[in-house]
Amino acid sequence: MKFSYLHVNEGRLQNTLEQMAKIGATSGGGVQRLTLSNEDKLARDLFVKWLYDLNLEVTIDEMGNIFGKQQGKNPILHPVISGSHLDSQPKGGRFDGTLGVMGTLEVLKTIQDLDLETERSIIIVNWTNEEGSRFAPAMVGSGVWSGALKRDWVYNRKDIDGKRFEDELSRIGYKGSIPCQKRPVYCYYEYHIEQGPLLERAKKTIGVPKGIVCLHWYDVYLEGEANQVGPTPMEGRHDALCAAAEMILKVNTLPNRMGGNMVATVGEIQNHPNSRNIIPDKVHFTVDIRSWDDDHALSAWKLVRQNFEDIAARRGCTIRIEETWRVDRSPFDKKMIHEIKTITDELGYPHLDMISGAGHDASYMNQVCPTAMIFAPSMSGRSHVEIENTSWKDCEAGANVLLHAILHSANEKRVKSKLRTH
Amino acid sequence: MKFSYLHVNEGRLQNTLEQMAKIGATSGGGVQRLTLSNEDKLARDLFVKWLYDLNLEVTIDEMGNIFGKQQGKNPILHPVISGSHLDSQPKGGRFDGTLGVMGTLEVLKTIQDLDLETERSIIIVNWTNEEGSRFAPAMVGSGVWSGALKRDWVYNRKDIDGKRFEDELSRIGYKGSIPCQKRPVYCYYEYHIEQGPLLERAKKTIGVPKGIVCLHWYDVYLEGEANQVGPTPMEGRHDALCAAAEMILKVNTLPNRMGGNMVATVGEIQNHPNSRNIIPDKVHFTVDIRSWDDDHALSAWKLVRQNFEDIAARRGCTIRIEETWRVDRSPFDKKMIHEIKTITDELGYPHLDMISGAGHDASYMNQVCPTAMIFAPSMSGRSHVEIENTSWKDCEAGANVLLHAILHSANEKRVKSKLRTH
Repeated sequence: MKFSYLHVNEGRLQNTLEQMAKIGATSGGGVQRLTLSNEDKLARDLFVKWLYDLNLEVTIDEMGNIFGKQQGKNPILHPVISGSHLDSQPKGGRFDGTLGVMGTLEVLKTIQDLDLETERSIIIVNWTNEEGSRFAPAMVGSGVWSGALKRDWVYNRKDIDGKRFEDELSRIGYKGSIPCQKRPVYCYYEYHIEQGPLLERAKKTIGVPKGIVCLHWYDVYLEGEANQVGPTPMEGRHDALCAAAEMILKVNTLPNRMGGNMVATVGEIQNHPNSRNIIPDKVHFTVDIRSWDDDHALSAWKLVRQNFEDIAARRGCTIRIEETWRVDRSPFDKKMIHEIKTITDELGYPHLDMISGAGHDASYMNQVCPTAMIFAPSMSGRSHVEIENTSWKDCEAGANVLLHAILHSANEKRVKSKLRTH
Repeated sequence: MKFSYLHVNEGRLQNTLEQMAKIGATSGGGVQRLTLSNEDKLARDLFVKWLYDLNLEVTIDEMGNIFGKQQGKNPILHPVISGSHLDSQPKGGRFDGTLGVMGTLEVLKTIQDLDLETERSIIIVNWTNEEGSRFAPAMVGSGVWSGALKRDWVYNRKDIDGKRFEDELSRIGYKGSIPCQKRPVYCYYEYHIEQGPLLERAKKTIGVPKGIVCLHWYDVYLEGEANQVGPTPMEGRHDALCAAAEMILKVNTLPNRMGGNMVATVGEIQNHPNSRNIIPDKVHFTVDIRSWDDDHALSAWKLVRQNFEDIAARRGCTIRIEETWRVDRSPFDKKMIHEIKTITDELGYPHLDMISGAGHDASYMNQVCPTAMIFAPSMSGRSHVEIENTSWKDCEAGANVLLHAILHSANEKRVKSKLRTH
């Protein structure tokens, strides 16, 4: 039997995606399943039910990562892992993360339908808190699992209401007892939407990223002086919001000033006391810098940090900067990339070589084992928004590539562990 | 008996100010009594109790304005009104508004202690929602009373949680049955803290404003396009927060660009979805412009509005602007100003001629009857903050001036109504 004839069940994949999209559905057609929220719990409950329906061996670790294992023929061989995440941004889309989990689920169903036994076990995973929008930073489930982040540091992270990560994990009933730590893995696949406009522009069906850009997150805290706006002359004001406004524009022009090859964004701002007739005295805002070149991103930060300090000094505001999170760029496994492209060609899908500008759990898994990703096109390049969309046809195409890639890896017999040590 | 020998009871004034400061007290030494909140209700309850303790005739109108009337000898003569407001900014100060109400209360106690009968009735008032920080705009109690604002428009204003003004007024039990509309008044006094640094800098005890600057409030709503920050190139972004940042700086430089004689401030901003890895798509911010010259403020708005539209167009954002509120400048009654200065001299307090940069209910009362204000110094010019402060000595000095000013006006016998019609 030639694998290229195999394909997943498109209607069934659509159905599971649509069922999952009902959980936390928003009026604008998206989903809101912030990590460790009630909606996240409901999504997990449904996912776990589906894992049991497939008779998988379900385990939940102390970070709330959920694994479902389909046993391979040869217990000596290390497993293939594939998955993504079910949590979402506030008013996010139905495909971000979910496609990779539901895609893997559909692959497992297809394999079971056809009674295809594989040499290696296949493990489907839903990682906890990939988004990082409720609890910063992002990708903490895979981060702790890979050893890059400390469990207890993550446990103590707080959301904007002061709620602790660990407490919320316990509250929704997903603080498992199994230690969250890396184990030998043969390789890791993550199927995901592109979240950008390149595939659509190039009219390609499958994106094959050579890796993920580096990701740097910073938190800036400014303090000026509050006063009634009317009787306080313009001269001598210490307006923290004006200082922040200058800094936001410095971030916005940073990629140009650095000669390109990066993006830089301020996505979040809190202003205090946020009353229209009081000069703002406290402002917090975030900075997100990404590049394929780690050193370039660090040089950019050095430049903009100096800009921040100059602006704060000139406006008489104090400034405190937290270097919240850094993940180096992740170049994926060349052999796996080659295999994905071969499969894509055999299935007749046009593909595009690219770099992922979005961070993924694959960044951390790439530190543990050979890793690669498969991208499906995002309509109009829109993502992290309610109207995020990918055609059912494209969802199926990527799942077909994933099916063949997983079957290929799960039947490779090299016994030698490919677990990397760092 | 010569009035200049009379003075209020400093210790008693301090005591009432301290008692009132306990309601909504904040850890930083200020108060938080947002209008129509539970704390506002408690402050009103205590105030009304104190009015009954003085055997005043208490009335509450349909806007929640609270009046306490001490009957004069001659019922034909129009009354003298004096007061201010008990609501506060979020984490505001103990003196803003409260000093004018407690100062008038102390004046009435002093008059009663000495069995001084006056020709005219004296009415103490607490106006509803002077601050405007929970429900915009500000000064709506006096605004409706004076006829400048429509009652039902104010009733339908909503706070940030979507609660209606009228519902909250009913909830705290202060929606009275008496129509809120202007009645004949001989004159209006408002005693207040300066809220700026000028008195302290000039080492003067009493500020005598010739009037209040005009006050223009605007609300700006921007809409761009949200996307995942990583895979979205810098070119072609429609970042609403960057557009807002440029606009905030245009507001900040506006007074300089207009050649001075004004202040302009952005105090409030909301950013959506406010997630660090999503490009902001919706931003709302406020603009506050004040000047002694109405036309100058309007020209400034015309200029900055054009700046806004240019910036929005260049960044591919849509812009919607609400011209929320305009109060023209209020030149106070020259005769009353002269009388206040005479009293101040007689009492031996050094005074400063000035303009009020802060808005006050006196702006609207000035449209109805002869009006004037008395200012006490603000330590370090700080106001709308928890550390707002005025020495007890200075509190007493202003109350002494108010005592003599009220006695003077309440004994003037001109029968002719000074009610202005507009």
